Amino acid sequence: MLAKVTDTAAGTAPSSATPSSPAQRVRSVTDDDRAHVFHSWSAQAQISPPEITWAEGSRFETADGTRYLDFSSQLVNVNIGYQHPKLVEAIQRQAGRLLTVSPAFANDMRSEAARLIAEVAPGDLDSVFFTNGGAEATENAMRMARLHTGRQKVLTTYRSYHGATAGAIAATGEPRRWPSEPSVPGIVHFWGPYLYRSAFHASTEDEERDRALQHLRDTIMVEGPQTIAAIMLESVVGTNGVLVPPPGYLAGVREICDEHGIVFIADEVMAGFGRCGEWFAIDRWEVTPDLICFAKGVNSGYVPLGGVVISRAIADTFADRPYPGGLTYSGHPLACASAVASIGIFREEGILEHVRGVEETVLRPGLEAIAARHPSVGEVRGVGFMYAVELVRSRVSREPLVPFNASGEAAAPMAEFAAECKRLGLWPFVHFNRTHVVPPCTTTADEMREGLEKLDAALEVTDRHTA
Amino acid sequence: MLAKVTDTAAGTAPSSATPSSPAQRVRSVTDDDRAHVFHSWSAQAQISPPEITWAEGSRFETADGTRYLDFSSQLVNVNIGYQHPKLVEAIQRQAGRLLTVSPAFANDMRSEAARLIAEVAPGDLDSVFFTNGGAEATENAMRMARLHTGRQKVLTTYRSYHGATAGAIAATGEPRRWPSEPSVPGIVHFWGPYLYRSAFHASTEDEERDRALQHLRDTIMVEGPQTIAAIMLESVVGTNGVLVPPPGYLAGVREICDEHGIVFIADEVMAGFGRCGEWFAIDRWEVTPDLICFAKGVNSGYVPLGGVVISRAIADTFADRPYPGGLTYSGHPLACASAVASIGIFREEGILEHVRGVEETVLRPGLEAIAARHPSVGEVRGVGFMYAVELVRSRVSREPLVPFNASGEAAAPMAEFAAECKRLGLWPFVHFNRTHVVPPCTTTADEMREGLEKLDAALEVTDRHTA
Repeated sequence: MLAKVTDTAAGTAPSSATPSSPAQRVRSVTDDDRAHVFHSWSAQAQISPPEITWAEGSRFETADGTRYLDFSSQLVNVNIGYQHPKLVEAIQRQAGRLLTVSPAFANDMRSEAARLIAEVAPGDLDSVFFTNGGAEATENAMRMARLHTGRQKVLTTYRSYHGATAGAIAATGEPRRWPSEPSVPGIVHFWGPYLYRSAFHASTEDEERDRALQHLRDTIMVEGPQTIAAIMLESVVGTNGVLVPPPGYLAGVREICDEHGIVFIADEVMAGFGRCGEWFAIDRWEVTPDLICFAKGVNSGYVPLGGVVISRAIADTFADRPYPGGLTYSGHPLACASAVASIGIFREEGILEHVRGVEETVLRPGLEAIAARHPSVGEVRGVGFMYAVELVRSRVSREPLVPFNASGEAAAPMAEFAAECKRLGLWPFVHFNRTHVVPPCTTTADEMREGLEKLDAALEVTDRHTA
Repeated sequence: MLAKVTDTAAGTAPSSATPSSPAQRVRSVTDDDRAHVFHSWSAQAQISPPEITWAEGSRFETADGTRYLDFSSQLVNVNIGYQHPKLVEAIQRQAGRLLTVSPAFANDMRSEAARLIAEVAPGDLDSVFFTNGGAEATENAMRMARLHTGRQKVLTTYRSYHGATAGAIAATGEPRRWPSEPSVPGIVHFWGPYLYRSAFHASTEDEERDRALQHLRDTIMVEGPQTIAAIMLESVVGTNGVLVPPPGYLAGVREICDEHGIVFIADEVMAGFGRCGEWFAIDRWEVTPDLICFAKGVNSGYVPLGGVVISRAIADTFADRPYPGGLTYSGHPLACASAVASIGIFREEGILEHVRGVEETVLRPGLEAIAARHPSVGEVRGVGFMYAVELVRSRVSREPLVPFNASGEAAAPMAEFAAECKRLGLWPFVHFNRTHVVPPCTTTADEMREGLEKLDAALEVTDRHTA
């Protein structure tokens, strides 16, 4: 039933896409949002979500007419930029052909998307189970690993995010899982490499790698290798810090998995499809996992889509034994058509090469210069168009600018920083004591320079909070 | 990496939407499907999914040129029919405007979809948490109920399906959950009403209702009412039998929930948005649950979309306390635009009235006549365009035509029936010993008659298996 709202436009029959006056539109959209939209991860009475009214390339505009350069790619998903004309056209064309068929049928777009994804995936990962997003991908990857091995436990790291359905949130290693506990049994969290705040008191990358692998081996020993179905890792940890594994770490994990018959699941939901300058981030280290989870960048979220790329051995487990999982929209033709077009555009426009080039010539040197200039910057790190700027009270003590999982008053310095970025026309990605530089993969060198200048200016705010 | 396939079209760069010759297309799509698409709920080596190449209204065509009248609506989701021109156009228009923004923003289509869904939802259910599909809807509904009540257990029925992520499959009361067990703790399954095979040895609807409610009360007593967060029910049980609750049952559940402070979750993923001739099936009985899960019919699956409609009291729980759940594509503008257009079309074209009219004049009398004619039909039951024909070896013993959860040889009579339907140009929905009549809600009276004639003819096959 419709709640009483003050706006006169509310309560009428479905209106056309663009109501009469901008002022009325803004009021109506905002009022309806506050009255009827229940937002992810939010205290509903404490938010005032700005309305996005326009977006193109690397920029979007809010209803008040402000245009932002986007350093967040929404939730690190708009890898191809906003409203890419060829991708828009592919979606419009497929909408006119065939929007939806169930997973029980074959479909040209589904076949082609699966073939193309298999083509860009490493090793013998050549079949694709499609889902609607990342959470369903990690859920199904864990199910496949459990049934393939006949074992129950899944090892994941602290400081990880794998989605918010019951299985995915249990696998998640950060605070968002707390309110959903107790949850699915059989998940064991361990510590991954993070040299800047080493869990292993390491002081070099080699030491961090060796000790992190030893910690993993020890954890497997005490958990019992024969009880462990899978190790699931973000190839490059995303929201929880852009933690780039030291050289040799992922190869070491692969070796440990092989030794014990454990399935290696690479969660590439955020890191894949261009974000790290590769089809899959793990390609940087030439390691082949058994399962890859993807979503976001596969089609830039233009249509909800995710999935699992599956090794031959695991697919064979379900050759004559039914795979016990599914969903109505698995392999959705509209979503698959957008993945087909997106992969084509990535190739035609050389987006992976573009990311690596701009990273090398603009992003990395720019961030290094920023780090040198600002006492609040403890470290910059990353790969491709996926960088973190970690902010501290002091470079000596490395005390985070705001505490772990801070909110409200305790998080004020980061809120001030975000507000300053926005005032300067830059939309930042902020998490705990970090800002991530995760713009669309199509961001030009000039746009990147522009964004870095704004970031540079905004960091004056955080510098004021240093000791 | 691309598997070796024999087809010459494979391995090339992304092709255009329509490859050169039909023969080549068919071969390529099928080969790529078998090589690269991992299908839901299937033994991958034992399926040969037919390719759908065209669909419009109530019919679709496969690559061999056969056209089918659809009595399945794919997975009971294409409520508005295939490729409805106004819905196609709305999707194409929104694709050109703005495809994706994150849940942290407001957006005109998201606001309007939420307002319209609130408008058609009963009682004070006026905010909407959007998901990509049904599983995420039930997962989040259970999370909301747990946090709202501070309790852990969720009661669901045997013979139910609620999705396939860890929480949703645990809630599911049918065999598809078995391979995922042990799963999330805290789910208790009880028996719902099903007069034809009464768990309570009832012989009238009133008796079935009273005894089913007594069974639920007893179950709550022995589980401890103060431990129970929610009772989640399909308002009309879908895949597991089109089990229509006897009059007064859902009102009785509402009363029990109120008595113990238990949240009543109505899973309307299959039954909602026209399927039962109402916006929500539960409207038939004028009962207001606390949470409604929806997906499928909300936009006919043209773009993946689902969600939870939330009562004021439960939304208020998360006014100042963050709701700990979310997903990248929550409130996806393209998906929301399709929901806005779909609800508009439902209203303009009077689709709910159409369903009730054709049910009354064609579907129900037609199925009753079929039941009278065929000894293999034990019962027909349903509401709106959601009917089950339950097939038996004998009307006296009520022995199911094939056993519970039968597959392979044991399920042969149903496979023969399905093959005969297809031979006659009718695409049936088959589950265990039943066929469901679940055509698009836009199916005309003439098309319905045509389908019923084919169904009538195909039932000659099942009659041969009666005693």
